[in-house]
Amino acid sequence: MNAPLYNRFVLPDTQSGSLQVVLVSPRNPLNIGAVARAMANFSFSRLSVVAPFEPNWREARSAIGAPALLVNAVESATLSEAVANCTLVIGTETLTRRKPEQPVVPLIDLAPRVGRELAGGGRVALVFGSEKHGLTREDLSYCHLLAEIPTDLLQPSMNLGQAVAVCLYELTRSAAAATETPPVTSFLSTTFATTSGRLDLLAGVIEETMQAAGYSPRVMQAANRHDLRLLLRRLSLTSHDTRRILGLFRRILWRLNRLGR
Amino acid sequence: MNAPLYNRFVLPDTQSGSLQVVLVSPRNPLNIGAVARAMANFSFSRLSVVAPFEPNWREARSAIGAPALLVNAVESATLSEAVANCTLVIGTETLTRRKPEQPVVPLIDLAPRVGRELAGGGRVALVFGSEKHGLTREDLSYCHLLAEIPTDLLQPSMNLGQAVAVCLYELTRSAAAATETPPVTSFLSTTFATTSGRLDLLAGVIEETMQAAGYSPRVMQAANRHDLRLLLRRLSLTSHDTRRILGLFRRILWRLNRLGR
Repeated sequence: MNAPLYNRFVLPDTQSGSLQVVLVSPRNPLNIGAVARAMANFSFSRLSVVAPFEPNWREARSAIGAPALLVNAVESATLSEAVANCTLVIGTETLTRRKPEQPVVPLIDLAPRVGRELAGGGRVALVFGSEKHGLTREDLSYCHLLAEIPTDLLQPSMNLGQAVAVCLYELTRSAAAATETPPVTSFLSTTFATTSGRLDLLAGVIEETMQAAGYSPRVMQAANRHDLRLLLRRLSLTSHDTRRILGLFRRILWRLNRLGR
Repeated sequence: MNAPLYNRFVLPDTQSGSLQVVLVSPRNPLNIGAVARAMANFSFSRLSVVAPFEPNWREARSAIGAPALLVNAVESATLSEAVANCTLVIGTETLTRRKPEQPVVPLIDLAPRVGRELAGGGRVALVFGSEKHGLTREDLSYCHLLAEIPTDLLQPSMNLGQAVAVCLYELTRSAAAATETPPVTSFLSTTFATTSGRLDLLAGVIEETMQAAGYSPRVMQAANRHDLRLLLRRLSLTSHDTRRILGLFRRILWRLNRLGR
């Protein structure tokens, strides 16, 4: 039996280009380079780096075969900014005992969800935390869901580059396995999904309205902001929904402010 | 929803103990350490190192959480010696255009073959070549078959630790998939779903708020009510969400009415 090529599947170009890998606060440039290399191995090209520890990360020698990917990577100061135009933001973590606030999807079940989003014209971010601490609770509040890599409970912490390699392998593997299955038409066409940036805008207006209405004491503001971010991401709002809700809250806010003057 | 444990499958202890990872002529101890870490992540413990370049490889700091695995690893001078007691020796490589002399199995199809061997009491070796050149033709001649990782043809060469992580992930993933189908856990447990009556109550308060805020002309009220009903049902609100949103709108409404008096 000679080497068959049938197991060489990738997402369609236009789709893999709509998936970005986001690294939050990576410490070691060698790890960033290793991530770039794994991305090239599995045919992904869009890398975002949020608040990297070392300024010279683009020169990482470990990006074997993928230096251009590092040069073209996007650097931003915050995760909010990095995923602003994404319609589906996925946090990643290995198996832990703590209770996440987002829906958890085993890695093995992630690909169909990602595939639907991309097929509908959406933009997906796959987010990895720093080597030491993973994603913080605040980072996670920008995520619609959480993909869980099934590691050993006694030794769950993965090397960053290895975690990225395993996730991207799984996405391409599943895309391969799924090519012949007809696409499930999701109720909510992702073409009309709301970007993360729009959700942040909406959250801002709702928060302002809460304050104008004296909804809760000042000490509760940070907690409310956090809960609101989670809630808005859980609702699968269409861009049309978002526009209307935004319109409603702007109107309420205007009214509260005018009456309260 | 909390982290489900159903996606945590491993090979039975006696079986994962019968599978060894073999590294042939690894150059960089950091890579050996990274391999050990990945093995611990996916619950494998037997490592063999053949003709390592650096004598002090057992001290690799990259073996996070797996120093004992390095200490217990077996060093040998030749591959022949390392796999002497194995019943199935599997070489690994990424996608290449050259024609191997062994049967090639796509990585995705490897697990059943490995599972059968282990279940029958066999001993399996998974062999990885050096960072630079992979497995030589002579190395391959000790292999019963060749597992192929489906990488991009333009960028096939993987980092050693990442290649091991991907292969071991795939073996445990497939073992999991073969054991049983996990129950489909809906994101929104119906226990906490909102009843239709509660949604109507919420819709009523939102509608009243719209009117109090002068959100839209009276002729639009029926249309808005209809859209709102659809929207609230699409959002899969939990009873907790509903209570909070209701609280917010009641507060806004109270404020609007008081100010407007």
